[in-house]
Amino acid sequence: MDPTKQLASYLVSSRLADIPADVRHEAHRALLNIVGCSLGGAHEPAVNIAMRALGPYSGKPEARVLGRPERFDPLLASLLNGVASHVHDYDDTTPSNYIHPTSPVASALFAYASVHPVKGADFLHAFILGVETVTRVGNATYPAHYEAGWHSTGSIGVFGASVAIGKLLGLPLQNMTWSIGLAATQGAGLREMFGSMGKGFHPGRSAQSGYAAALLASEGFTSGEYPLEGPRGFAAVTAGRYDLEKITDKLGAEFAFRGNTYKPFPCGIVTHPTIDACIQIAKDRTLKARDIAAVRVRVAPLVLDLCAKRQIAMGLEGKFSVFHAAAIGLVRGKAGLREFTDETVNDPDVKAVREQRVTATADPGIAEDAVHVEVELTSGERLEKTVDHAIGNLGRPMTDRELEEKFRDQAVFAIPADKVDRAVGLCWKLGELDDVRRLIDAAVPADR
Amino acid sequence: MDPTKQLASYLVSSRLADIPADVRHEAHRALLNIVGCSLGGAHEPAVNIAMRALGPYSGKPEARVLGRPERFDPLLASLLNGVASHVHDYDDTTPSNYIHPTSPVASALFAYASVHPVKGADFLHAFILGVETVTRVGNATYPAHYEAGWHSTGSIGVFGASVAIGKLLGLPLQNMTWSIGLAATQGAGLREMFGSMGKGFHPGRSAQSGYAAALLASEGFTSGEYPLEGPRGFAAVTAGRYDLEKITDKLGAEFAFRGNTYKPFPCGIVTHPTIDACIQIAKDRTLKARDIAAVRVRVAPLVLDLCAKRQIAMGLEGKFSVFHAAAIGLVRGKAGLREFTDETVNDPDVKAVREQRVTATADPGIAEDAVHVEVELTSGERLEKTVDHAIGNLGRPMTDRELEEKFRDQAVFAIPADKVDRAVGLCWKLGELDDVRRLIDAAVPADR
Repeated sequence: MDPTKQLASYLVSSRLADIPADVRHEAHRALLNIVGCSLGGAHEPAVNIAMRALGPYSGKPEARVLGRPERFDPLLASLLNGVASHVHDYDDTTPSNYIHPTSPVASALFAYASVHPVKGADFLHAFILGVETVTRVGNATYPAHYEAGWHSTGSIGVFGASVAIGKLLGLPLQNMTWSIGLAATQGAGLREMFGSMGKGFHPGRSAQSGYAAALLASEGFTSGEYPLEGPRGFAAVTAGRYDLEKITDKLGAEFAFRGNTYKPFPCGIVTHPTIDACIQIAKDRTLKARDIAAVRVRVAPLVLDLCAKRQIAMGLEGKFSVFHAAAIGLVRGKAGLREFTDETVNDPDVKAVREQRVTATADPGIAEDAVHVEVELTSGERLEKTVDHAIGNLGRPMTDRELEEKFRDQAVFAIPADKVDRAVGLCWKLGELDDVRRLIDAAVPADR
Repeated sequence: MDPTKQLASYLVSSRLADIPADVRHEAHRALLNIVGCSLGGAHEPAVNIAMRALGPYSGKPEARVLGRPERFDPLLASLLNGVASHVHDYDDTTPSNYIHPTSPVASALFAYASVHPVKGADFLHAFILGVETVTRVGNATYPAHYEAGWHSTGSIGVFGASVAIGKLLGLPLQNMTWSIGLAATQGAGLREMFGSMGKGFHPGRSAQSGYAAALLASEGFTSGEYPLEGPRGFAAVTAGRYDLEKITDKLGAEFAFRGNTYKPFPCGIVTHPTIDACIQIAKDRTLKARDIAAVRVRVAPLVLDLCAKRQIAMGLEGKFSVFHAAAIGLVRGKAGLREFTDETVNDPDVKAVREQRVTATADPGIAEDAVHVEVELTSGERLEKTVDHAIGNLGRPMTDRELEEKFRDQAVFAIPADKVDRAVGLCWKLGELDDVRRLIDAAVPADR
């Protein structure tokens, strides 16, 4: 059977009961993570601007945007959820293809579920299938698609939104095929947008386009029948090399979620080992600049190629400074969104450590996800830590508790404190909810 | 200066007075043609389905869709205009790159102008700049972009909509650059959709996405600064070879409209010479099947490779039958939308000529846009006609009167007879209108 039909057939016939418990748990982790990221990004300028520009064209304002008081139609809400959840580059990543698979899929699903009664089990199932689709199409076209210059979180994410919404709509095989086809032909996202708001736009637009593809397909709007494998289809057009067997191989037996990772810190990935080591060193104590005599960091040479700025004034610069990474790890004992604000970057204690205590040495013997940190305290005490694989890697995943902490850290930017705990609890119980709106209600502030 | 900036700079500073009169006249012809195509396609299933699927998500219903009584928000109206105007594959084509440039640009502009007061001169100017942009980006990336499998009417059309709406919004240079960037990253359209509703979807989605790009850019949503020329930009990612000088060369001095053509018949292009010859033979007389003893058509071999079906039952099949082409040319003396309905295909007179009189011979000595037709009447009279270049080619363009006739032929599908003449007159006068809504009002039926 052709890959598109085989995929569509699996999606149509899949039952949640056939999905192993560990995969369902991983899906809950991804959802907890993405709701947190959506809350953390909900008030960023890219979201505000998109809302101002497109809000006047919204349909009936009934759908929710996570972390916001306003309501829009669910297609526009999908876009806004997508921008918010990816804007800090803090969402999950599948290392096999560098896609952030959850953002485009969950952004559409939450918008849909905010206006239709959806059982948690159905939501979870559609979400798992959406991410599975994104990851498989991603693996089949990686690395050629990415290397060609596509931001696959957008260009491939659209498939996930289309099949997830298609599953909730109960599309039969023919319409599911068209939903995949109408997604294929809307895949958007040039890597040239990196460093601009255009990057966060991609999963948002994909969520919206995939949602629209499913709606069109459900009413009988046709597409080509071979959108993935046809001679002018997605794979041939957007990837020089591809292996479509990866779309269908062990479908329903092996699951994408087992290869998904969560980012512990909202900053350049090469600074993560340093932060990780410094947090471990500072653990259970509060260090002040005056306590610290010297910090010696040994890192892979690439780290200093990318992140060697020490005198900085803006939060955004802090995301790419290994000196700032060490300073916040030691002084704050954490590295959440607040540690990369302009305020923190200019905090006298953080600044003193960053500019006057930390030295960094490039050591070709150290791997990119490793670090050695030595701290000399003014008391004479010496502390040191070697990290071989930074937290967040597949081999050393964030724990459920660490994901919760990451959630709380972001949630306070968008919802009242009393809702935060409720939202965390409801994320873990999502698969059992009678109506996903119970979670959505906890993840938005009061209506404006 | 970089191509994107140079293009944006031209668009921002261009004045209508700098555009030569012949180009303005050609733009009027293109608008007359596209309004006609929009009316002819307004009630096709693809439009009805898209309306049913996405209508419930429309914003404030104030924008018009040409040829329809319903109102939607202008972004959705752009999409619907685009589907309608391309659904019969009857809109204009630029032979240098096979793009149908008017559909994505005009579809957005008419939707915009139906909700905002826009002077005809400003509309015309924005339209010319939009088509200029589409054609130049198309020429710069042709043939690699098209050969890679992109339906450039969609993937490149989006630029035209974004800059045309951007011009009406009065975007300054930086925002015009972002509008181009946000268009570049939403270019959609796989040729794998050909033969499905997905093809007509492309200019519609492009009109809508380009319009949205301009709105976002106008509020300050940023994109990459080098969307066309950057290493991960539109040209590098979607075309193996390209020549970006074609975007900026003689900008403001040479105009795309001089290389634009109009399709005289809504059917496969290789049947056009046969229709052309038969209409000329039948001119000034009415032929019935009983008057015709034999029709001998000599065509390029390709014509019989593609269009050799004689026994057909559906209008769609008639579009790809050289036998049907000859029959309607002789019996009807024309080949508009009505000559490709199921009804006409099954009309006894047309059927008798198609199935019992016409023979076709492949002749390698005849070019693809040429034909030789010989008709033997039952009276013994012999008529023959050689066409060297079919009507509609750049070298033998449709006349203004022929375009009007094409318009009238399609308009009756969507608007009352008394509005047809008014709409024709207003299309020719568009550049002088105080408010483009005068034309739009004539091109829609009464409000539902």
